[in-house]
This record gives sequence, C-alpha cells and structure tokens, in this order.
Amino acid sequence: MSGFAKTPEPPYVAVIFTSRLAEGVGGDYAAAGARMEELVASQPGYLGKESARGEDGLGITVSYWKDEASARAWKAVAEHQEVQRLGYARFYETFATRVAVVHRDHHFDREDARKEQP
Amino acid sequence: MSGFAKTPEPPYVAVIFTSRLAEGVGGDYAAAGARMEELVASQPGYLGKESARGEDGLGITVSYWKDEASARAWKAVAEHQEVQRLGYARFYETFATRVAVVHRDHHFDREDARKEQP
Repeated sequence: MSGFAKTPEPPYVAVIFTSRLAEGVGGDYAAAGARMEELVASQPGYLGKESARGEDGLGITVSYWKDEASARAWKAVAEHQEVQRLGYARFYETFATRVAVVHRDHHFDREDARKEQP
Repeated sequence: MSGFAKTPEPPYVAVIFTSRLAEGVGGDYAAAGARMEELVASQPGYLGKESARGEDGLGITVSYWKDEASARAWKAVAEHQEVQRLGYARFYETFATRVAVVHRDHHFDREDARKEQP
C-alpha cells in the first residue's frame, strides 16, 4: 500500500496538482519539495498525498484534506506561499490546480483479496 | 500544454485512479490501455485525462467528465467492464478510485504569462 493515501470515508477534499517542470529545474526544487512534505505533514486536516512523475516530465500530486478550510489554510501558510511564488517564477513550465470534493471511493488490494478468499 | 486536459469552467467531475501494477504485467496491459484510450475519447461527456507513472511504479490517472452520469456511463461500457475485470484479476497489485466534483481550478502556463507581460 506504499504510496497510497489512507483517506477516511467520503466526503473529503482532493487537491489535484498537475505540472510540467521548467527546463533546468533541479536541486532547489527537490529541496523545496522535501521541506514542503515535512511541513504539510503537521498541517491540521491533512490526510495524505499520492504523487507520480513520468519519464515525459508530467507529474500529478493529489493531496487529501479533511475539508475545504484545511486545504485553504495550507495554501496560506507563509513558507508554503514563498514556495508557491518560486513555482510561478522558476519551477514550473505549466501547471493546473483543481480543488474537488470526493464523494465516492473504492479501494482494492490484491493481498487483502487473497486473504479474504477461502 | 501537452499532457494537460482542457477542462471547462467548474463544476465538472474528476475520477482519480491511483494504482500500482502487479508484477510481470506487460504487453496485454499496454494494449488494453491503448484500446481504452481510443474508446473513452468518443464517450459522451468525456473532457480529457492526465496521467503519470513514476519509476517507483505508482501511477495516477485523472479523467475528467461533464457530470457524474457520464462518468458512470463509461464505467458501465461492456468493453470497459471486461478490462476492469482484468484489472482485478491480473493488472493491479493495489488501486484506489475516487470520484470527485471539481468546484475550483487554476491554470498557469509560462508561455502565456510571458506574452501577457509588456
């Protein structure tokens, strides 16, 4: 289950962040990302995240939140705002942020399915 | 903007599919995926998708839909249901599907930002 967020029963909030990095982006981006991961983990209402970036450079990170208010509060954290500024100024060629309310979900794990079968 | 879905003004529906492939999955998975991409493109209410799979094997695909009804209709398409069965039976080690309503979004493109500046 590594890499999967352990979200509660819906409803909860998903922030879908799709991005393509700007050319030449490197260590400072990685450092900012690591710091943000550390910072977000202690943020009230944070439920976890899932993240993938393919060889073509397109990345998707979905962070999950208890509610809209907690997602907004994270966006307003000063140190996070500074990193958001760097995102516009240098890190990203293109990005899209979408805030959504999850109202239905479904999980499957092969290991669990094996155990449940006689 | 390659790889980004051109979604309309919110609200619209996002189906977030996070997955880890089962060991040894290969050509038949790729073929099924290619066929589903072809099939979904002509599905009523389909708005596009964004997809990434990282080196660690975790993948995220977000498909966007006009409304809940169109997302449900795609899930019920016979050929898609057959592939969903293969997903449980063979393709995936773990997956999570989350259906959400996007009510707010934001897009940034460096090229567009350059043009808008004097």
